[in-house]
Amino acid sequence: MFRPIYLDHNATTPLDPAVLAAMLPWLESQYGNASSRHEFGRAARRAIDEARQQVAAAVNAHPTEIVFTSGGSETNNLFLKGAAAALKPGLLAVSAIEHPCVLKPAAQLARQGWQVRQLAVDCAGSINLADYAETLLDRPRLLSVMLANNETGVVQDVAALADAAKATGGWFHSDAVQALGKLAIDFRSLNAAGVHALTLSAHKAGGPKGAAALVVDKRVELLPLIAGGGHERGLRSGTENVPAIVGFGVAAELAAQRVAELAARLRALQAKLEAGLARLGARIFATEASRLPNTSYFAFPDIDGETLVGKLDRAGFAVASGAACSSANPEPSHVLRAMGVAPEMARGAVRVSLGASNTEVEIEQFISALQVTVGRLQGLTAMAV
Amino acid sequence: MFRPIYLDHNATTPLDPAVLAAMLPWLESQYGNASSRHEFGRAARRAIDEARQQVAAAVNAHPTEIVFTSGGSETNNLFLKGAAAALKPGLLAVSAIEHPCVLKPAAQLARQGWQVRQLAVDCAGSINLADYAETLLDRPRLLSVMLANNETGVVQDVAALADAAKATGGWFHSDAVQALGKLAIDFRSLNAAGVHALTLSAHKAGGPKGAAALVVDKRVELLPLIAGGGHERGLRSGTENVPAIVGFGVAAELAAQRVAELAARLRALQAKLEAGLARLGARIFATEASRLPNTSYFAFPDIDGETLVGKLDRAGFAVASGAACSSANPEPSHVLRAMGVAPEMARGAVRVSLGASNTEVEIEQFISALQVTVGRLQGLTAMAV
Repeated sequence: MFRPIYLDHNATTPLDPAVLAAMLPWLESQYGNASSRHEFGRAARRAIDEARQQVAAAVNAHPTEIVFTSGGSETNNLFLKGAAAALKPGLLAVSAIEHPCVLKPAAQLARQGWQVRQLAVDCAGSINLADYAETLLDRPRLLSVMLANNETGVVQDVAALADAAKATGGWFHSDAVQALGKLAIDFRSLNAAGVHALTLSAHKAGGPKGAAALVVDKRVELLPLIAGGGHERGLRSGTENVPAIVGFGVAAELAAQRVAELAARLRALQAKLEAGLARLGARIFATEASRLPNTSYFAFPDIDGETLVGKLDRAGFAVASGAACSSANPEPSHVLRAMGVAPEMARGAVRVSLGASNTEVEIEQFISALQVTVGRLQGLTAMAV
Repeated sequence: MFRPIYLDHNATTPLDPAVLAAMLPWLESQYGNASSRHEFGRAARRAIDEARQQVAAAVNAHPTEIVFTSGGSETNNLFLKGAAAALKPGLLAVSAIEHPCVLKPAAQLARQGWQVRQLAVDCAGSINLADYAETLLDRPRLLSVMLANNETGVVQDVAALADAAKATGGWFHSDAVQALGKLAIDFRSLNAAGVHALTLSAHKAGGPKGAAALVVDKRVELLPLIAGGGHERGLRSGTENVPAIVGFGVAAELAAQRVAELAARLRALQAKLEAGLARLGARIFATEASRLPNTSYFAFPDIDGETLVGKLDRAGFAVASGAACSSANPEPSHVLRAMGVAPEMARGAVRVSLGASNTEVEIEQFISALQVTVGRLQGLTAMAV
């Protein structure tokens, strides 16, 4: 059977078979509600406790610093709105290249009296340090800068950024959903530098959809987004999704065990891919910045990204155009706009994001298919001129 | 292997094997993000579309009236906070017997300028109509009255309540998580009566944890609790939990197909159970009200509910004391308090909630075990006197 090659791991990853195996008993005979006092419930509670330890250990945090949620978007909303609700309105600083699930809650807070400032990035996609220093003078109460960008893969030095913000007394959050499994994450050392909270998501790292976590310094006062039965220390009510949380625990443990070896292997595949892209005349974005080992974001002049993604899909290669999570939106990427990329070039943007199962042969096949597809599209463009 | 008998279906239900079978492909090879444009993503989108049709059909709603969320607590928070955010603060009326995931968001809204009134119930657990009529005179902007109570099983006539509230112009919501699969639900006719929104949850009706829905009249203006990529018509952002949503669709379809036959069978088991409870001298709560066919809530004088649940657990029967979802809370049930049950009797409360797999033989075994356990505990009480 024809099986397309999946090159879109920043959108979501396949469930690791070991993760699914760990989840299955909780989808079959072990169905208790973790709040129930009987054995079905206690077994579920023990499973959640173990998963909490696994997730904490994977990012060098304490289990009591983990708040389980249903996803990365919920987690970012919980941090921003939950922390804002416990503070007087003031300045909220978020980077211009955040995911919409940070930018939109920030916009909601702006309608509730918060002043929202978007931190500029340079043309390589890294935070503009002069702009950042100037923002800090206005003492933001809340800051959110992502660890790794979903589109470009650019990794921010959040430890240094948080350290610089320490004197402001504001809470510093970082969306790390794209970092888990691709970079080593050490919450203890980030926390020492001044990072107060991180967002993690299972399905970006071999785990299931439906489980995520806020890793949070207990000094941060948060009001719950979802109030009710008082689950997760009152910070996130609702019957725990036991199978998904169990899967998240195992996925986080495997991610931490494998990250060094996997990152090295992905880095080699990325180099091979980008050498091929360069040969074909692609412009690769953000190559001057520190980037994730799995993400390559590029465009060909005069070729529409959506069109290219569609042709590659029919050729058997699953890649993304612009940001996968907002691909219902036909506007060029806000990340590339923030980097000063011209709209006509940004509209060409295509993202390849590699994962554990990808091979050198797949990269070669992809480059060959890309060469043919781009050649045809350029031929059409030439004829149209 | 010893397998306890599960009598706690209002806390959560086992996943129907047909539901798990439908979910498995989406946990294995079909792992795409439903927002992705390639074939992995389009397949996920088609699966969500189908599940939306199944859930809508199960409650006689239109697919465009379904907003998928991660759980019942999130859904109740979404309705209350989302509708409140689009209105000027005013009167919010919720019944005194609502689940904490309605009462707690109401308390949060009270700190944001809303006036919150708890609607009284009578000693059988039904809304006190005189108190309700008086509240309507003050024109609540939002009302929330659950369809069926998780503890007592009491079913409210929400169509009549909503109809009476029509003249106020307020939005009327009903938490129906305990009704799905146990009662036929017809959103079209409820909506005609004046019900504007319902909360449904998959795991209460043979579906997976991690999927739920707000069924909502499109005239209700809602702001999202989780803002971001704009999923679910902008009302609930975040990567869709495809396997759980697929499972919800199948579970809802099965629930609607089976409800008449199942309710009749549960009603017979409930009668048998309650005849046994009466023989043993239990006080059964809310028997004068219309109740779910699966729920029996009772107490024995001078026997602590927690203690009885623990003894029954060791004897192999999984039942609940007070409200399962808040059993971390040692206070007597707020539902029984609202019904005017004396605290010493309320502290004895035990809930049996039956499900599709329970049998007559299990009911007989349970009554025998209860007789032995209650006899021993009464003997201890007598000796202590």
